[in-house]
Amino acid sequence: MHIVCTDLEGVLIPEIWIHVSRKTGIQELSLTTRDISDYDVLMRKRLALLSSHGLKLKDITDVIQTMDPLEGAVEFLDWMRSQTQVIIVSDTYIEFAKPLMVKLGWPTLFCNFLSIDGFGAIIDYHLRQPDGKRHVVESLQGLNFKIIAMGDSYNDISMLTAAEHGFLFRPPHNVVVEHPQFPVKYEYAAIKEAIAALLA
Amino acid sequence: MHIVCTDLEGVLIPEIWIHVSRKTGIQELSLTTRDISDYDVLMRKRLALLSSHGLKLKDITDVIQTMDPLEGAVEFLDWMRSQTQVIIVSDTYIEFAKPLMVKLGWPTLFCNFLSIDGFGAIIDYHLRQPDGKRHVVESLQGLNFKIIAMGDSYNDISMLTAAEHGFLFRPPHNVVVEHPQFPVKYEYAAIKEAIAALLA
Repeated sequence: MHIVCTDLEGVLIPEIWIHVSRKTGIQELSLTTRDISDYDVLMRKRLALLSSHGLKLKDITDVIQTMDPLEGAVEFLDWMRSQTQVIIVSDTYIEFAKPLMVKLGWPTLFCNFLSIDGFGAIIDYHLRQPDGKRHVVESLQGLNFKIIAMGDSYNDISMLTAAEHGFLFRPPHNVVVEHPQFPVKYEYAAIKEAIAALLA
Repeated sequence: MHIVCTDLEGVLIPEIWIHVSRKTGIQELSLTTRDISDYDVLMRKRLALLSSHGLKLKDITDVIQTMDPLEGAVEFLDWMRSQTQVIIVSDTYIEFAKPLMVKLGWPTLFCNFLSIDGFGAIIDYHLRQPDGKRHVVESLQGLNFKIIAMGDSYNDISMLTAAEHGFLFRPPHNVVVEHPQFPVKYEYAAIKEAIAALLA
């Protein structure tokens, strides 16, 4: 039996921080691990920016609420769910992802979470565990599932490597060059065909 | 972060074999592990009965297609999915469950599978792993999830025991008597209230 472990941002929905950066006009919120390689430094900077602009969780989720899944994502996800089991494995935070999960029809999501204070301010972030994506794949393999993994970036590589089958979906050029071992797909129709062949 | 691991038959949908027994008129198909304690003996008898009556997979799924989730199950499941993550953990077979999964909105399902020959006959069954329900709970705990488990019968006990919180939902009387350590709920409103309290 198979499970598809799919990344969320860049694969099924747009990048959340980039969208929030645009909508709030706070340009520094669009910085990523490509700009600040230490994730903890990056996240503390993001939380400090939100705090200094007086932005609480609800302000951010109101912005996220205006986002939509990528064109064709809902149909693609629905197709996968009708063919096999699917778990979305993401480094995002459940509080941010929720408004988009309803638009995706409440698929199962394994991700991280935030600490919110009594006034609704985001005061801390929590990774469920280090290298969480790889651990998900290995745990599910321990339950005798075969894993088809798909993702778009560096934080997906350990998940794709651990999986029986790994695909890069719409990755940036540098990820393709550095990880030539993974088939690359750019359209839902193409990855659908590849997954269908594995499930046949 | 929590995950609800919920049983399927008797909790969200009616018992599949009992329904198939009624609709096909093959009374022996309603035998359960309460009548034949060795699961392998029971399953081989069921498959032999289907074969001797010339019933193929499609005949069975046509019958299952006429089943509906239990009254209130869809709303209860939708509520859980909007509050936390949910995985249905069942000893059924994916080929049987599928017509009901569409009616439940394609939740994630961990279960077993059948072997089908080129003519559509069911020739064998496969358990994903022994004591699969307990292993699911333990694997998810290894991913730093806290587990709320719910089920109705003997095959759920190891899952309920391994979970941080276990509930019996609409269990037969003997299960309640033999396992007094688990809170018992009979209505979706009551289990919803209990789960909401744990998630708060």
